[in-house]
Amino acid sequence: MLMIPGPTPVPEKVLLAMAQRPIGHRSGDFSKIIAEINDRLKWLHQTKNEVLSLNVSGTGAMEAGIINFLSPGDRVLVGVNGKFGDRWAQIAETFGLDTIRISAEWGDPLDTEEFRTHLEGDTNKEIKAVIITHSETSTGVLNDLETINKYIKAHGTALSIVDAVTSLGAYDLPIDDLGLDVVASGSQKGYMIPPGLGFICVSDKAWEAYKTCKFPRFYMDLGKYKKANLKASSPFTPPVNLMYGLQAALQMMEREGLESIFSRHQRLTSATRAGVQALGLKLFAADDCASTAVTAVEPAPIGAEDIRKIMSSKYNIALAGGQDHFKGKIFRIGHLGFVSDRDILAGIACLEATLIELGHDIKPQAGVKAAAAVLA
Amino acid sequence: MLMIPGPTPVPEKVLLAMAQRPIGHRSGDFSKIIAEINDRLKWLHQTKNEVLSLNVSGTGAMEAGIINFLSPGDRVLVGVNGKFGDRWAQIAETFGLDTIRISAEWGDPLDTEEFRTHLEGDTNKEIKAVIITHSETSTGVLNDLETINKYIKAHGTALSIVDAVTSLGAYDLPIDDLGLDVVASGSQKGYMIPPGLGFICVSDKAWEAYKTCKFPRFYMDLGKYKKANLKASSPFTPPVNLMYGLQAALQMMEREGLESIFSRHQRLTSATRAGVQALGLKLFAADDCASTAVTAVEPAPIGAEDIRKIMSSKYNIALAGGQDHFKGKIFRIGHLGFVSDRDILAGIACLEATLIELGHDIKPQAGVKAAAAVLA
Repeated sequence: MLMIPGPTPVPEKVLLAMAQRPIGHRSGDFSKIIAEINDRLKWLHQTKNEVLSLNVSGTGAMEAGIINFLSPGDRVLVGVNGKFGDRWAQIAETFGLDTIRISAEWGDPLDTEEFRTHLEGDTNKEIKAVIITHSETSTGVLNDLETINKYIKAHGTALSIVDAVTSLGAYDLPIDDLGLDVVASGSQKGYMIPPGLGFICVSDKAWEAYKTCKFPRFYMDLGKYKKANLKASSPFTPPVNLMYGLQAALQMMEREGLESIFSRHQRLTSATRAGVQALGLKLFAADDCASTAVTAVEPAPIGAEDIRKIMSSKYNIALAGGQDHFKGKIFRIGHLGFVSDRDILAGIACLEATLIELGHDIKPQAGVKAAAAVLA
Repeated sequence: MLMIPGPTPVPEKVLLAMAQRPIGHRSGDFSKIIAEINDRLKWLHQTKNEVLSLNVSGTGAMEAGIINFLSPGDRVLVGVNGKFGDRWAQIAETFGLDTIRISAEWGDPLDTEEFRTHLEGDTNKEIKAVIITHSETSTGVLNDLETINKYIKAHGTALSIVDAVTSLGAYDLPIDDLGLDVVASGSQKGYMIPPGLGFICVSDKAWEAYKTCKFPRFYMDLGKYKKANLKASSPFTPPVNLMYGLQAALQMMEREGLESIFSRHQRLTSATRAGVQALGLKLFAADDCASTAVTAVEPAPIGAEDIRKIMSSKYNIALAGGQDHFKGKIFRIGHLGFVSDRDILAGIACLEATLIELGHDIKPQAGVKAAAAVLA
């Protein structure tokens, strides 16, 4: 049982769709599948923009989102309050962008005021893009994208480049209403399919910037993907069987409806947090910046790895560990994608049993009771 | 029934392996799968070099093979006698390499003497790499890699960068014996799994060149993949379910054995060519440069698209069409990967029936008889 923030659980319907024999990716039949997927991706992204599907991981999608719309030496602001923000700053630096890191402690949200100050002070319009991790998977923090986006809009020139890898499909992200320029995500998250596909949603403003972009690129040249998208095709061989899975998953999502998906994730998040707290464990992110995809827990003095080991060996539940300097200090519970109330109650019940086994003195049924109260 | 040069038919065992639920890609269990895959990839590549698995298509693998070992302005020779050679030249040009195209007509093999002349004349050792498409999928031509490689070795400095996308697993390519530096391939070909994974085998000499490479890269930074490989891990989230399929496919290949795989492909190629010729159709590539992955046929005055349409609608056999300026002029029969004698006889029998339907005057059973004679 996967309770990590990706890969997330995959519905049987999707697994069986993926087990079909591949057909030719240049056939009329496959073109119909691409057309259907493209339509549904727009629905999921709440946008009229083209949503491009690339055969890459989420990191590949973010890299493509950065190198297609900027040029060497361009100034960018990068929000860094976890492993993924740090990775996007590394990409920006690797490609020779003039990278200003707006940092916050891991577990804290980004300070929106710092973005305001930088953007308002940039009267020469030298800031070409603001790169933001919406839901920081390494810490379970949801950054205040709406507020930062307001300052980007007021600036007028800078593009917004958003890592929505663990927020898309888990949190209401109305891309056109917000006017976001580049939004990247990955298949093994809210999409409920295995890893292997990255998605990038691109605004008209970003396509304007694309025209003057100076980075050489071929496989990651998004212009090629846009051109192909408009013909319900792909520039390079797409991962046919993953696309079968994506088609099935998007159909399931449409049947559930966006509102239901978002409220389910909110409910699962609240229940998880209530359960964890009732067990006497400390939540790593505050309530007002809690990701709806993943909840990080700081169980000290109990060892995070001790908890993960028992959860895995005894209950066959995979929890994620901490990353980088939080290895061993936190564990993370994924509640993203194909996750139900039952899964959360099962997870909290097993966590409770694990804590008892580790000698932690807790009120019997405290966690399950608190989580169930939220779900009721 | 797929008779195109990729995606190729996928065995049921592989499809079912892929339908398993994903597990965490950072778990010990998945690490064991990666370790097994890495060992078997070395076996398949006949090498002690690390073979890196990337979540990209074959084009992505070739791009990574080029941009990790060269720098802007470096001189490269690129063999161009079909769509894929042309694509690698485009990549080289896109990234600002000083690109010398060694061209031949589509359907002809590359002239090895041209490579000799350029390499022997390069006394200042300005040529940093020679980029060769081994089996040119667009035309069914197998280029004489062995001879060109001899001239590269005599040059001493230039790296060999080889597109083995439709030769690896279909033709004996002893990478260490030949001393090839960079060899790229893709999953949906000889590997018998769906598209989604690219592979790159890298020599020590190429890793030396890597150290001074000046192209910025992050997702495609092969150093990151090598480091992860040595720990049976991956730098970014790998396509877990495709890896399940790869594990199953490599196990099947080891059971068959390299010699049997190569001789089967040779037998299927000879049977296909004999059948096509007995039907009075013209083979696009000569016998001495025939790819063991794909056979291109020039059926004029009969229309290639007319043949493909009937083969598809009446017999549910997908043949590939011609690409670029050979669209409508040739069709291509794939016999790569999970293909048996029965498949070839079925294909030739249906081709025969198709030609009769199109009013072509052929001796009954001529094609099947000729193909069967080869297989016997």
